Amino acid sequence: MLACHFLPGRKRGLEPDSDLNPLAGQVRVPPSGMHAGPLSHRLPGACKMLTVAACLALLGCLQAQELRGHVSIILLGATGDLAKKYLWQGLFQLYLDEAGNGHHFSFHGAALTPPQQGQELMAKALETLSCPKDTMPSHCAELKEQFLQLSQYHQLRTAEDYQALSRHIEAHVQQEGLREAGRIFYFSVPAFAYADIARHINSSCRPAPGAWLRVVLEKPFGHDHHSAQQLATELGSFFQEEEMFRVDHYLGKQAVAQILPFRDQNRQALDGLWNRHHVERVEIIMKETVDAEGRTSFYEEYGVIRDTLQNHLTELLMLIAMELPSDIGSSAAVLEHKLQAFRALRGLQKGSAVLGQYQTYSGQVRQELQKPGSFHSLTPTFAGVLVHMDNLRWEGVPFILTSGKALDERVGYVRIVFKNRAYCAQSEGHWAAEQSRCLPQQIVFYIGHGGLGHPAILVSRNLFRPSLPSQSWEEVEARPGLRLFGRPLSDYYAFRPVREWDAYSFLLSQIFHCRKESFITTENLLASWVFWTPLLDSVAHEIPRIYPGGSENGHLLDFEFGGGQLSFTQQPLEQLVLGPASSPRPSDFRVLRAQYRESPLISAWPEELISKLASDIEATAQQAVRRFGKFHLALSGGSSPVALFQQLATGHFSFPWASTHLWLVDERCVPLSDPDSNFQGLQAHLLQHIRVPYYNIHPMPVHLHQRLCAEEDQGAQTYASEISALVANSSFDLVLLGMGIDGHTASLFPQSPTGLDGEQLVVLTKSPSRPHQRMSLSLPLINRAKKVAVLVMGRTKREITMLVSRVGHQPKKWPISGVLPRSGQLVWYMDYEAFLG
Amino acid sequence: MLACHFLPGRKRGLEPDSDLNPLAGQVRVPPSGMHAGPLSHRLPGACKMLTVAACLALLGCLQAQELRGHVSIILLGATGDLAKKYLWQGLFQLYLDEAGNGHHFSFHGAALTPPQQGQELMAKALETLSCPKDTMPSHCAELKEQFLQLSQYHQLRTAEDYQALSRHIEAHVQQEGLREAGRIFYFSVPAFAYADIARHINSSCRPAPGAWLRVVLEKPFGHDHHSAQQLATELGSFFQEEEMFRVDHYLGKQAVAQILPFRDQNRQALDGLWNRHHVERVEIIMKETVDAEGRTSFYEEYGVIRDTLQNHLTELLMLIAMELPSDIGSSAAVLEHKLQAFRALRGLQKGSAVLGQYQTYSGQVRQELQKPGSFHSLTPTFAGVLVHMDNLRWEGVPFILTSGKALDERVGYVRIVFKNRAYCAQSEGHWAAEQSRCLPQQIVFYIGHGGLGHPAILVSRNLFRPSLPSQSWEEVEARPGLRLFGRPLSDYYAFRPVREWDAYSFLLSQIFHCRKESFITTENLLASWVFWTPLLDSVAHEIPRIYPGGSENGHLLDFEFGGGQLSFTQQPLEQLVLGPASSPRPSDFRVLRAQYRESPLISAWPEELISKLASDIEATAQQAVRRFGKFHLALSGGSSPVALFQQLATGHFSFPWASTHLWLVDERCVPLSDPDSNFQGLQAHLLQHIRVPYYNIHPMPVHLHQRLCAEEDQGAQTYASEISALVANSSFDLVLLGMGIDGHTASLFPQSPTGLDGEQLVVLTKSPSRPHQRMSLSLPLINRAKKVAVLVMGRTKREITMLVSRVGHQPKKWPISGVLPRSGQLVWYMDYEAFLG
Repeated sequence: MLACHFLPGRKRGLEPDSDLNPLAGQVRVPPSGMHAGPLSHRLPGACKMLTVAACLALLGCLQAQELRGHVSIILLGATGDLAKKYLWQGLFQLYLDEAGNGHHFSFHGAALTPPQQGQELMAKALETLSCPKDTMPSHCAELKEQFLQLSQYHQLRTAEDYQALSRHIEAHVQQEGLREAGRIFYFSVPAFAYADIARHINSSCRPAPGAWLRVVLEKPFGHDHHSAQQLATELGSFFQEEEMFRVDHYLGKQAVAQILPFRDQNRQALDGLWNRHHVERVEIIMKETVDAEGRTSFYEEYGVIRDTLQNHLTELLMLIAMELPSDIGSSAAVLEHKLQAFRALRGLQKGSAVLGQYQTYSGQVRQELQKPGSFHSLTPTFAGVLVHMDNLRWEGVPFILTSGKALDERVGYVRIVFKNRAYCAQSEGHWAAEQSRCLPQQIVFYIGHGGLGHPAILVSRNLFRPSLPSQSWEEVEARPGLRLFGRPLSDYYAFRPVREWDAYSFLLSQIFHCRKESFITTENLLASWVFWTPLLDSVAHEIPRIYPGGSENGHLLDFEFGGGQLSFTQQPLEQLVLGPASSPRPSDFRVLRAQYRESPLISAWPEELISKLASDIEATAQQAVRRFGKFHLALSGGSSPVALFQQLATGHFSFPWASTHLWLVDERCVPLSDPDSNFQGLQAHLLQHIRVPYYNIHPMPVHLHQRLCAEEDQGAQTYASEISALVANSSFDLVLLGMGIDGHTASLFPQSPTGLDGEQLVVLTKSPSRPHQRMSLSLPLINRAKKVAVLVMGRTKREITMLVSRVGHQPKKWPISGVLPRSGQLVWYMDYEAFLG
Repeated sequence: MLACHFLPGRKRGLEPDSDLNPLAGQVRVPPSGMHAGPLSHRLPGACKMLTVAACLALLGCLQAQELRGHVSIILLGATGDLAKKYLWQGLFQLYLDEAGNGHHFSFHGAALTPPQQGQELMAKALETLSCPKDTMPSHCAELKEQFLQLSQYHQLRTAEDYQALSRHIEAHVQQEGLREAGRIFYFSVPAFAYADIARHINSSCRPAPGAWLRVVLEKPFGHDHHSAQQLATELGSFFQEEEMFRVDHYLGKQAVAQILPFRDQNRQALDGLWNRHHVERVEIIMKETVDAEGRTSFYEEYGVIRDTLQNHLTELLMLIAMELPSDIGSSAAVLEHKLQAFRALRGLQKGSAVLGQYQTYSGQVRQELQKPGSFHSLTPTFAGVLVHMDNLRWEGVPFILTSGKALDERVGYVRIVFKNRAYCAQSEGHWAAEQSRCLPQQIVFYIGHGGLGHPAILVSRNLFRPSLPSQSWEEVEARPGLRLFGRPLSDYYAFRPVREWDAYSFLLSQIFHCRKESFITTENLLASWVFWTPLLDSVAHEIPRIYPGGSENGHLLDFEFGGGQLSFTQQPLEQLVLGPASSPRPSDFRVLRAQYRESPLISAWPEELISKLASDIEATAQQAVRRFGKFHLALSGGSSPVALFQQLATGHFSFPWASTHLWLVDERCVPLSDPDSNFQGLQAHLLQHIRVPYYNIHPMPVHLHQRLCAEEDQGAQTYASEISALVANSSFDLVLLGMGIDGHTASLFPQSPTGLDGEQLVVLTKSPSRPHQRMSLSLPLINRAKKVAVLVMGRTKREITMLVSRVGHQPKKWPISGVLPRSGQLVWYMDYEAFLG
């Protein structure tokens, strides 16, 4: 039976009437992330920035929002932990906030449990509802009673159950003479149940046209990019994008929901500070003291990165790093800017993370999941990840994301540390703490717990006095002795919420108001998985560092970074290391010197080999610049040189780039901006990190008169005359080559009719693989070089390496065998895998 | 009479004999900056890196060094303060160190004073000589007596006096049966006397061929680049470069002389740290408590920048910033690397410095120099200067140079502060001070005084354990309670010299051994003046901030930087401000909107105008990228856009550079790399600071087939077809123009036969000024743009601005009057000086 209830004296109609608010007499402070202004005035402009789909999604919301009437909220998993702890309370709050604004509600708890039993369990869950703390007890009881009257339990198992629910709602709405405004389905159930429920809702429980449907989903949203994509596609076959609200409850936390408003309200002070010139680092931290005991069946499958970094910490990162839209009230603009920030993320690699696992974790897994005694889990319970953004605002600023269980304290925060941009002319003893610009400057969004114990926003007093909405944020009272982030609390302007709210109350309100910026759109979700999946894949078999837990961790989990790589500061302690003895590290080996095809061969593990090659190139460059004032370097494309480019870009500060001319050994006949272009690799991995004058860069002219490698355009001849004009005797100081598994080098393939001999310096050639058309330096030109280095890496090169070691001068068959500088030096650089197999 | 003295049992010959050391039985520790190895083995290689002159200079030294015999040292100004305080003592030390090594000495004090009186004054100066502290008193007396026997006074005033001295030396050498090795003249006299003395030495007192001459000069070496050049030229007419030793006594201080050896001996640890990725900032500080009282006649002419920054602090900067030669024992390599570092210095501007003057300074000047009561000096006694190096190693790292008198403490140091590259997973309370990588990391070369009271080298213990030569540097004893640079002394590995030496003793030894790297070569000196002179010129009329002196300075002299500009942190206190009320600041004015030639006009002070134009360009860019995916921007060259480029590069982090195509409005027919090229300005001020893909940059093809703007090469047509191919309808999103005082715009000059009308999009034109040949967009092409902005700045534009405001459409006469976009928008940006005159 559906309890039908109206507030005393309630008017039937669509006009809001604030006098009828069940909390009459109290001023309710709207969460400051919510914007009261009508969305309709803002959306059309913002829509221009969005994909059509996203725009429609928001317009869908808009239309729905304008209609008032009856709203049914169906809580699936109504007797589960999340429902008991947060969701029913959130729904009660929503009712208290909105029932007075012309909205009518019914609340439907649902689960698989049969009706009688479910009804009892649900009643128990509802017993603990609480009113806002300044509500009189008698008034509170009355309000709870009203809410209970509107709530009932349903067993939802079969299609018929869903149909029955739908009919039930329709009947009720009709009976009460209302119009149905919409239905909210809250999925507080395990992810595996999503698809079934979604199918039932879509086929049997959608409201009639004209009323809206909103489904609320809780993580996990997949396990990696592939599964997230699958789940998204599946859900997308049942629901429109605008109907789905994926919850990341961190976005509902007060200090988090305030990040964008804070950035907006303090634009003037932050405008000059919020960039790489001023920000030293950003720490995004979520530390827990609890461990995973009792939850290992979930945790073992997910681990810390999927559990907290891929979602919560990534969303925090985006709120800090994204460009601030001119109107933060526009959900569309906020979401678009967030996606832009995702696009600027530099890809993660294995070395971008350090992983740990608390000592008793594997034992807990063995016990809870009935694993054998020999079982050791590789699931990380601690991770530190270094993130970089490749845009002008954040280039070079480290974003440190850290989360873990069984740590020494429970705390969550985003901490922006500013560079010291001052010099204090007095000796330190004379610095006045609050004023001195030489003391640390930071802004902290303190999510909760820790030394402070409540959400807060901290701004160093020597930075600026922040502006916060005074009706919802107040200054924190003094707490002598309390130090936070290296400074006493009194060093900060510190604000806390006037009224603490629970994240779910806030999010339910946002869903009800169709504010999408606090939720994870499909694009946003997939962008996050695109970012995290390569790291997850690359560390899947990594053995995490074992830590004892709590304050005993000592410095064991401290980590540091350099050259884009993270590593633990302390060497591993032997007694804590799991699994097989760690394999020898590259630096345990020495560079091997030998001969190959009667020329010097340098062989080593890849890391050393690249490092040696880079040093040799720099030495050659220095020498050439000393002697001739310039250095002419011709580089090959492909994947092997990428590591070399990175090494040169980040490790060689005295490389004479300003006097270096860069030439291409070969090029694919695609536009220079094509991702397949060799030049593009050079640009991405080398040029954008160094300062080579524009006119010292010599891409091959494969794209002339809007066409590619047309003989008539004489691109090869043009390049040849450019070389002749600038490079003395057309003799490069250094040519870097690779070797293909068919024995090709540069873009000179076996049996090539051009380039293997003759007079031409630069030739057009054909490759057996796409794109077929190529431009290449010729063998005769290569052989005029003062030095030629051939870089050969990887196991796949083993066979050709063996073969070429034995053949004579047969360039028609194996073009590489024709590389023999007339008076210059040839050196082979091969890693052990290519050379030793 | 010249006292001739031999040590007992001394052999006559060139063989060194350590048994005959006058300090027999004591081990003398050679200053660690000195290298015992023979220079001859190292020089030839290093010579390849040097100019011929510098190489000859060093070879000159080398040849001289190989000969042993009699050395005469003539101290000019033998009875002056410096001589009394340091130089005689230094010469005594030299005698003690070297007399045992086969060298013979005579010491000649000289001055203008008549012989009798001079002899007495000198005797007085010599009374205070002291022996190394562990010498027995009786032995010391003996040593002093020996030294006195070798010393005598000469009046040197006329050419005859110098001739007499020369004859005297020759006679003595002959009489003793020795060979003359060389003569050292130490100029401890005012700089104005240099030229006369130098002329006399050159004409009358050079040793015979085969023996060397060394002259030692004390600063000041000029007052600016011009006067330094004059003085250098003058001295150069009397002495060879290799004969001159310009003293900067800071280079003789122990912590300073150890900088390069420290960098060398700790290469492995420093290699990865000594760059912009790890160094947060470098402070180079020399604070004094004394003021200039009694010395204002000198100080009033020089001021703090010439007194300490141009020399001492600049030399320190170079020792830190220079690339470390592979062999720091090679003077030639050290000097060459230092010159390279000078070339990487970014030019200083007015905003690069803050200046102060202690409150009583002007009064002291009035009193000492008999100035009227109304006199106020503008001479700074305090300066903070922000220096940047434009190379890959140091890009973006602030080097802060500060020096001043009447400050709160006497101290000198170079402090390298490292970035925090660690995250400590435990809450702060658990950090162990010595181990935590999260605590500050720094290296300090502590020159002396301050809290420590002696020279030292400090390295944070959480950084690395430094290697120092244990015979000359020892660990500093614990001093509980002493804090340095924010940390207790115990946080550092701290080393002090086993034996403190005086800078002059060290430098005299270096001169004697012909080690030139501790002295200022002419090239080095002029490079430093080239760097400092523009700043000195630009602040010559700046009113320094007045400070009370000592610890009362409070935060008055604290300064901070942003966007390359330095400023005092505190607003000036009115009662301390000198001179006329400060003129209104640009921000006191608002941007004026009006009409000019029936198009919108935006007028403001230059700073606002540029800021407004940059914002307008960004807004246009954002809009174009949103609509079309790209932004085509055509830019003019010249000086006005430079400020715009800088503003765009440093203040616009969300500018969509990756989607922006940059075109040139016009170009001079010079190679792109020519400093006159418009492209070069774009490259230097914009491109190298942003990330525009290579293929989005479109320089004009003025240089084809190794010739400039040849009609046959069809560069204009090529550019036109590139535009047609990439820019829809050849309609740029924005064209930025300027206006010349003859009414030209782009490179379209009055009466130009091309470009003012017709079909051609890009044309070759002639300019009345050099270089005459130009390439330019045509008016018809410009007028196809969606938006045209004309930037006009400066008083010189006033007349043409007036004139053009009145003329109609007369492009033949005033090409600018032909700018009238067919369907686009035209906006004029004029600063008040151009518009209001």
